[in-house]
Amino acid sequence: MIKAGIIGATGYAGGELVRILMGHKEVEIKWYGSRSYIDKKYYEVYQNMFQIVDDTCLDDNMEALADQVDVIFTATPQGLCASLLNEGILSKVKVVDLSADYRIKDVKTYEEWYGIEHKTPQYIEEAVYGLCEINREDVKKARLVANPGCYPTCSTLSIYPLIKEGLIDPNTIIIDAKSGTSGAGRGAKLDNLYCEVNENIKAYGVAVHRHTPEIEEQLGYAAGADVKINFTPHLVPMNRGILITAYASLNKKATYEEVKAAYDKYYGSEKFVRVLDKDVCPQTKWVEGSNYVDVNFKIDDRTNRIIMMGAMDNLVKGAAGQAVQNMNLMFGFKETMGLELVPMFP
Amino acid sequence: MIKAGIIGATGYAGGELVRILMGHKEVEIKWYGSRSYIDKKYYEVYQNMFQIVDDTCLDDNMEALADQVDVIFTATPQGLCASLLNEGILSKVKVVDLSADYRIKDVKTYEEWYGIEHKTPQYIEEAVYGLCEINREDVKKARLVANPGCYPTCSTLSIYPLIKEGLIDPNTIIIDAKSGTSGAGRGAKLDNLYCEVNENIKAYGVAVHRHTPEIEEQLGYAAGADVKINFTPHLVPMNRGILITAYASLNKKATYEEVKAAYDKYYGSEKFVRVLDKDVCPQTKWVEGSNYVDVNFKIDDRTNRIIMMGAMDNLVKGAAGQAVQNMNLMFGFKETMGLELVPMFP
Amino acid sequence: MIKAGIIGATGYAGGELVRILMGHKEVEIKWYGSRSYIDKKYYEVYQNMFQIVDDTCLDDNMEALADQVDVIFTATPQGLCASLLNEGILSKVKVVDLSADYRIKDVKTYEEWYGIEHKTPQYIEEAVYGLCEINREDVKKARLVANPGCYPTCSTLSIYPLIKEGLIDPNTIIIDAKSGTSGAGRGAKLDNLYCEVNENIKAYGVAVHRHTPEIEEQLGYAAGADVKINFTPHLVPMNRGILITAYASLNKKATYEEVKAAYDKYYGSEKFVRVLDKDVCPQTKWVEGSNYVDVNFKIDDRTNRIIMMGAMDNLVKGAAGQAVQNMNLMFGFKETMGLELVPMFP
Amino acid sequence: MIKAGIIGATGYAGGELVRILMGHKEVEIKWYGSRSYIDKKYYEVYQNMFQIVDDTCLDDNMEALADQVDVIFTATPQGLCASLLNEGILSKVKVVDLSADYRIKDVKTYEEWYGIEHKTPQYIEEAVYGLCEINREDVKKARLVANPGCYPTCSTLSIYPLIKEGLIDPNTIIIDAKSGTSGAGRGAKLDNLYCEVNENIKAYGVAVHRHTPEIEEQLGYAAGADVKINFTPHLVPMNRGILITAYASLNKKATYEEVKAAYDKYYGSEKFVRVLDKDVCPQTKWVEGSNYVDVNFKIDDRTNRIIMMGAMDNLVKGAAGQAVQNMNLMFGFKETMGLELVPMFP
Repeated sequence: MIKAGIIGATGYAGGELVRILMGHKEVEIKWYGSRSYIDKKYYEVYQNMFQIVDDTCLDDNMEALADQVDVIFTATPQGLCASLLNEGILSKVKVVDLSADYRIKDVKTYEEWYGIEHKTPQYIEEAVYGLCEINREDVKKARLVANPGCYPTCSTLSIYPLIKEGLIDPNTIIIDAKSGTSGAGRGAKLDNLYCEVNENIKAYGVAVHRHTPEIEEQLGYAAGADVKINFTPHLVPMNRGILITAYASLNKKATYEEVKAAYDKYYGSEKFVRVLDKDVCPQTKWVEGSNYVDVNFKIDDRTNRIIMMGAMDNLVKGAAGQAVQNMNLMFGFKETMGLELVPMFP
Repeated sequence: MIKAGIIGATGYAGGELVRILMGHKEVEIKWYGSRSYIDKKYYEVYQNMFQIVDDTCLDDNMEALADQVDVIFTATPQGLCASLLNEGILSKVKVVDLSADYRIKDVKTYEEWYGIEHKTPQYIEEAVYGLCEINREDVKKARLVANPGCYPTCSTLSIYPLIKEGLIDPNTIIIDAKSGTSGAGRGAKLDNLYCEVNENIKAYGVAVHRHTPEIEEQLGYAAGADVKINFTPHLVPMNRGILITAYASLNKKATYEEVKAAYDKYYGSEKFVRVLDKDVCPQTKWVEGSNYVDVNFKIDDRTNRIIMMGAMDNLVKGAAGQAVQNMNLMFGFKETMGLELVPMFP
Repeated sequence: MIKAGIIGATGYAGGELVRILMGHKEVEIKWYGSRSYIDKKYYEVYQNMFQIVDDTCLDDNMEALADQVDVIFTATPQGLCASLLNEGILSKVKVVDLSADYRIKDVKTYEEWYGIEHKTPQYIEEAVYGLCEINREDVKKARLVANPGCYPTCSTLSIYPLIKEGLIDPNTIIIDAKSGTSGAGRGAKLDNLYCEVNENIKAYGVAVHRHTPEIEEQLGYAAGADVKINFTPHLVPMNRGILITAYASLNKKATYEEVKAAYDKYYGSEKFVRVLDKDVCPQTKWVEGSNYVDVNFKIDDRTNRIIMMGAMDNLVKGAAGQAVQNMNLMFGFKETMGLELVPMFP
Repeated sequence: MIKAGIIGATGYAGGELVRILMGHKEVEIKWYGSRSYIDKKYYEVYQNMFQIVDDTCLDDNMEALADQVDVIFTATPQGLCASLLNEGILSKVKVVDLSADYRIKDVKTYEEWYGIEHKTPQYIEEAVYGLCEINREDVKKARLVANPGCYPTCSTLSIYPLIKEGLIDPNTIIIDAKSGTSGAGRGAKLDNLYCEVNENIKAYGVAVHRHTPEIEEQLGYAAGADVKINFTPHLVPMNRGILITAYASLNKKATYEEVKAAYDKYYGSEKFVRVLDKDVCPQTKWVEGSNYVDVNFKIDDRTNRIIMMGAMDNLVKGAAGQAVQNMNLMFGFKETMGLELVPMFP
């Protein structure tokens, strides 16, 4: 049994971490950090936790926390984790950072897209990008894991095998992504009000969304070369779920079987990536509440392009679930422990 | 480890039974009955079960099923279970019937409100009304359990202590209920189309809904006398959740503390009924996906009435979860086994 | 052609006023008041108005406004209109106040329920409660109209005829109301975020909602005596629409035809109140975007109670539409001018 | 005042035609055709029309209808209009066909994609594709108008100017489209049930959707050459609205001003196409209930691609509104008559 602390426990990702860890046999949450709700009962912030969590919210004191727990999850705004981390902390606990602070290896790229100075660039190199299906062995040895972004997780997993197998031209990739509203966080902003989101769909961050360089970096590793893509996120009137629809030109004519084989090669023994049957399109509802990513594809002979699709729960595999998966690997637990969540339908 | 069969496995309640039993250590599903989808893979009907359930749907053959399993769940239209049940079956397996067939003790009342002839009234007396918090000891000994309706579960649990303690006048009870759309089932009916339900709310079955006599019977037991109530259900644009708002006249002035004590007397040690803190109104989202019923109340001194509120997931505590809770009691498992589901928010 | 000014033009009710007045032949909006968006183009706040409204938002200067227009609409927080109004203004323009400031005749009741001091109680007596179907003749002569609240409009119209005709006992009235989220306004509050409202229903303001005394006052006029009711509003995951379900004991056995005749007596020649056919329950979607209130009822002989139902668009008949209807009466326009809005379905 | 008949008046597009024509001064609906609801009052099918429409539904008798009206709208399944049309009918009335029967000039393409034989190919040549902004003069002279599909309307208008001006390479066009559920029609199908659509998003008809050749044909006219595109529609949990996000490679570096000028050249004096201000992304809610198409674009210098966006109400500009716009042109009415619908927000 290990002890965990969460900094940012009252955001949606933090709340989901709590939900998942409640069902994890080897973890006990010792610290519910929430600057906004210090001294308030956690269940008063999230009444679903009434009679389940009796703890009180604490401040975001990472130093104090490091003395009390084995693992720290930071589900905090960009820049916060980078501003708090130091060698003392890292020598005592393992850290899974759900923010973007250690995801991008090139600090200039990070600073440009996020518009903030990185306070502890010395840990970027060491940090392991926690996309478990791809970096599993490195995660096992890590003391600092950069938990991937929601869009990058779904995008990378949906496209990765086809780049690795040389089936598509990486520089033709266009990712059109759709996300539920929990991805926007729990901040009280006009744009996220019910009446503004409901019965509405819009693109946002067109050509400037911060997840773009993160996806490009990961796809670049697969390609063995720099990759430039288009990425357009959309806000969809639903709570949870990300669907990505990605387009790329095939390097040469490919059959369904060839492409299917490529996906199976990488995901055939992966628990959390499900390559759906032929012609079955992923739906976000089929993975809701679970750690699955459902992927599939369709070849369009008319245009020689392939359409790749991936669906995922943005709060689980796109945030808290993947964080727990990373923790499991870091501590030598069974990778799926606490994550055997059956999707809820309807 | 016991074996279970589900008749009606492809309705929403049946699907929820599958979801819950996937996480139950002592149960293995051996029979996915679905007249509509015979020979089809179960996961093709519910793709959330892809790579989780590999079984194929079978016919609704209760006789054959009784030879293969220890417990049968019938999540079928009214009248079906009553038409299939016989002594041979009951001598071999335990049955949890999610339909209304054995809920109402007076067969005439059943036949009037449901408009069908009851084919096996001889089992009505024996059947135990499976509201575990109230009939726990009887459920433990039962071979046939009538799993309560969704509205009756939420209504009865929200009101029961105040009748038992003589705090309210039962014949002044008015229950205004609101339900998500999964309660209407998975039938392809115009009224349940997305565009008809979304951005809309309506009452239905006003003064004639079939759950009325079921609620009246249960409240009548608490009162020790016949009770007549008003019950009005409403269809709400959401997938899951029932909220009931009930009104009754207080028999005499009562303080918050007195009423709270009445609730605590009955639910203080109940896992699945949460009496919320003062002035916290139940919300369906706080129990989504879980077996909880959240209840609370507000006294209105101006009118000498009390407003009782209860929130519940109609597919869990209102159907499949309660069915599993009953099964646990019937087989001597821990009552909460497989039901430690943390509500999902948002 | 008259000139209108709107104070609070960028709230949801203000926006709806603009939408409706765009289609009114005899009115030109001259002043888009919005303290929050001064100097911003109105269409930048509501992009649906792009290329339709080119005006810039102005401050809430009621004095200056009174010199420029014929009618002022105040769609502002409680207390603001009362704090600005004076004889100079009222001598120059007609005022339709969409806030609660002049709705309740007893200033103490207002101050108790709203928790604010009334700054200009001298105008309460003069103000006409603008429920056109009931106070039509008084509205025609008014210079200050208190536009009714959303819940009170729907509640009063649904119940009024039965009290007037002595069919029900007013002190047994219980109103269970359900509202879309636009009723909560456009303020950036956590409780109104998409993820908090979606897939959720809750009661709020139980036994203490401010619309209670307003409804009681109006029903009291009908009864010719003080009336105390229970009123419980609920927040429903939809943008627009109010449904009220009201319960009362019948004074004596009544037939469908008798009750129908009572409704027809009062609404038979009313354009905006539609008494639906027998057994047709009102649905909010059937009135969306329009100025209609759909009402109907069901007698429950078993309990000797009657269930009254009413559905309405909270932003139209519950706010802006009724305000325009009042304005039409005050200026001698055809009452329905600009309000021939056909409900939008789906 | 002309007389109109609608065949298929009880589908969602038919219902929207009724809503719009109720506000059209020069049109009277004489025939509400609906094979499914013959002899039923129209308002019993759509209760929003209670006390607005008192007519009874009639059969789909186009011959009889042609003797009684000046214009026939066919809002019917594919193939029906083509099977009924003949010279006798066309000699008496003008026809606006909302189905796909006369949209595609190459009958083989139609038959391949729609999988049905075209019964009256002799009228395809004559039929005018009713995209008013592009074919206005031809529509004015037409007796048979093929009303464009919803996706093609939004897609073509969003992309057309850039092809005409040679700014983009047509064969790099990828259209990722998102639609509300009313586009799927009012048929009682499992896939369109509330619980299947709500809280869910999916792609459908990937690489095989029937609107693909229609869009390709229209873009081909603009390009002066054959065009092959990718088109992927998605089902979004909302009633109304289409958003398209289109991608294409720029033929050469282009500035914002150059591209904006291209849009303004074609739409500067168009009432119903609004080119939004820089960096404002179209949202479906901003056009709901109206005949507007909101378009905008973003240049991505990193990839030398342009992202084009368009939002529209699928039932108005995507169906009934455009049909009325076509009718206005055909009869010499003001093009905007009956279509001055202000978008409803929220």
